[in-house]
Amino acid sequence: MAMYVVGHKIPDSDSICGAIALAYLKNQIGEEAIPTRLGEVSPETQFILDRFGFEAPELKMSYAGEDVYIVDHTEKTQAPDDIDKATVVGVVDHHKLGDLTTSTPLECWIRPVGCSNTIIKMMYDFYDVEIPANIAGIMMCAILSDTVIFKSPTCTTADIKCVEALAKIAGVDDAKELGMEMFKVKSAVEGTPIRDLVMRDFKDFNMNGNLVGIGQLEVVDLAVFDKIKDELHADIAKLKEEGNRHSVMLLLTDIMKEGSQMLIASDDEAIIAKAYDVEPEASKVWLDGVLSRKKQVVPPLQDAFAG
Amino acid sequence: MAMYVVGHKIPDSDSICGAIALAYLKNQIGEEAIPTRLGEVSPETQFILDRFGFEAPELKMSYAGEDVYIVDHTEKTQAPDDIDKATVVGVVDHHKLGDLTTSTPLECWIRPVGCSNTIIKMMYDFYDVEIPANIAGIMMCAILSDTVIFKSPTCTTADIKCVEALAKIAGVDDAKELGMEMFKVKSAVEGTPIRDLVMRDFKDFNMNGNLVGIGQLEVVDLAVFDKIKDELHADIAKLKEEGNRHSVMLLLTDIMKEGSQMLIASDDEAIIAKAYDVEPEASKVWLDGVLSRKKQVVPPLQDAFAG
Repeated sequence: MAMYVVGHKIPDSDSICGAIALAYLKNQIGEEAIPTRLGEVSPETQFILDRFGFEAPELKMSYAGEDVYIVDHTEKTQAPDDIDKATVVGVVDHHKLGDLTTSTPLECWIRPVGCSNTIIKMMYDFYDVEIPANIAGIMMCAILSDTVIFKSPTCTTADIKCVEALAKIAGVDDAKELGMEMFKVKSAVEGTPIRDLVMRDFKDFNMNGNLVGIGQLEVVDLAVFDKIKDELHADIAKLKEEGNRHSVMLLLTDIMKEGSQMLIASDDEAIIAKAYDVEPEASKVWLDGVLSRKKQVVPPLQDAFAG
Repeated sequence: MAMYVVGHKIPDSDSICGAIALAYLKNQIGEEAIPTRLGEVSPETQFILDRFGFEAPELKMSYAGEDVYIVDHTEKTQAPDDIDKATVVGVVDHHKLGDLTTSTPLECWIRPVGCSNTIIKMMYDFYDVEIPANIAGIMMCAILSDTVIFKSPTCTTADIKCVEALAKIAGVDDAKELGMEMFKVKSAVEGTPIRDLVMRDFKDFNMNGNLVGIGQLEVVDLAVFDKIKDELHADIAKLKEEGNRHSVMLLLTDIMKEGSQMLIASDDEAIIAKAYDVEPEASKVWLDGVLSRKKQVVPPLQDAFAG
């Protein structure tokens, strides 16, 4: 039975490129695997796929009765809705350990590095499988995206070395330059519906029983948000009203200035003030040096919710 | 800050030998590590430690504020009581993914093999660290124990190859013979208090919100239980009365005949009948070919509880 290799809901480049790269590896070692995705491809990811000549993996939402290899998370909120009816045969991830459980033994390749594709490169090395140039290209771009071209505090020397090695295989002379090109595509927000922007890179977390949604938009200049910031703020408040979330936050991240403005819609703004030791004004706050949702935004909030 | 490397409550040989072997590896790669344990050392483990000249790791129950590397499980019920106040920096395990969660990224070396020590051997190879002869010896014995000298359905070719490699390093000519010696020590149950036998290799599981305790005694001949089986059965019923468990089961495993008699104390024997498709008589049942709690006993019960 073929396994499906799939990243999280609202897939980012790590989820899409990781699914393609890992499925290829699994097929090479004799385990039939099909890459799939749990949502639309972002403009950044589409740029990467086009650049290296790939089609997007098949959109597939239901996995009941199937074998599934999970990429880039261990959170039920980010997994297929019917994941409890699937058999999770493996996980490759670089986040905190979430609430996904299984009823049978599995393999987990989880490391505290900047990107799942850095770990997938380790898996290629472990199995001694050669990485095709175009797969090396998409893996490299996923790492440049997740590490914000090495600027994120999540970036490790393993990620940097991995990009260097993959660039060589892919025949890319200047990886950072390609990374900047990618982030410029990501920064083109004009003309996109507001809700699409809010949901473009949005993740739900279960924080001590409270559902918390955190979106992030990474751009090369925050000025692109000047005209639409109020609309974005109004829309996360609306999103909160529509669902059962305790809080919805949107991070507007300036990768050149290296910081994030956080827009907040919350039942309890005090817990956010406590988590980051700041006082929001008009439900907004500038978080200097904050680039990483995973390392700088989620853990303090998780701790604040835990008491 | 030194990390503590610790296995599960009611430690088996994999937990104790794995903590020692992994702490040694971590120290070799420049990460200070101290092996500890969450309970008494079993006669089998003591035999292994004596055979290769080790003291038991320090008994330490509380880990608040400490860095912890978990060996051989991802279950809160098997972890230190204050694990939520510790930082879990890593996990090495070969079971299903349990309900342990973290608030920060970590490393997980989880593989569907027969023993955590087989994975720890992979870690030595990954970091290219030489295994001392006496550490190879205890790792080898842990694998022989967990795989019931390769007879368990959990045993993989990776485990067998690993034992062969470790035996060479340890200077052990006949690994299987040493394994049999070890199981004979394990089979010496006479003179041991009944409750000690029930708890010797006992694990609690959270099954869809129900606490289920499953003990296992592996012996070379079930005749050793002839005189005490009724007492064992009465004691698991008593254990259930004392706590809040839905069910307590004790597996009396004959490693030569390759099967287990299951003694049952349950609020709902029908769910056990359903899980294993058998009809218990007098709350007892023979499960032919069943050697592995992890692979043959827990998953069907987990599925039965899930509905």
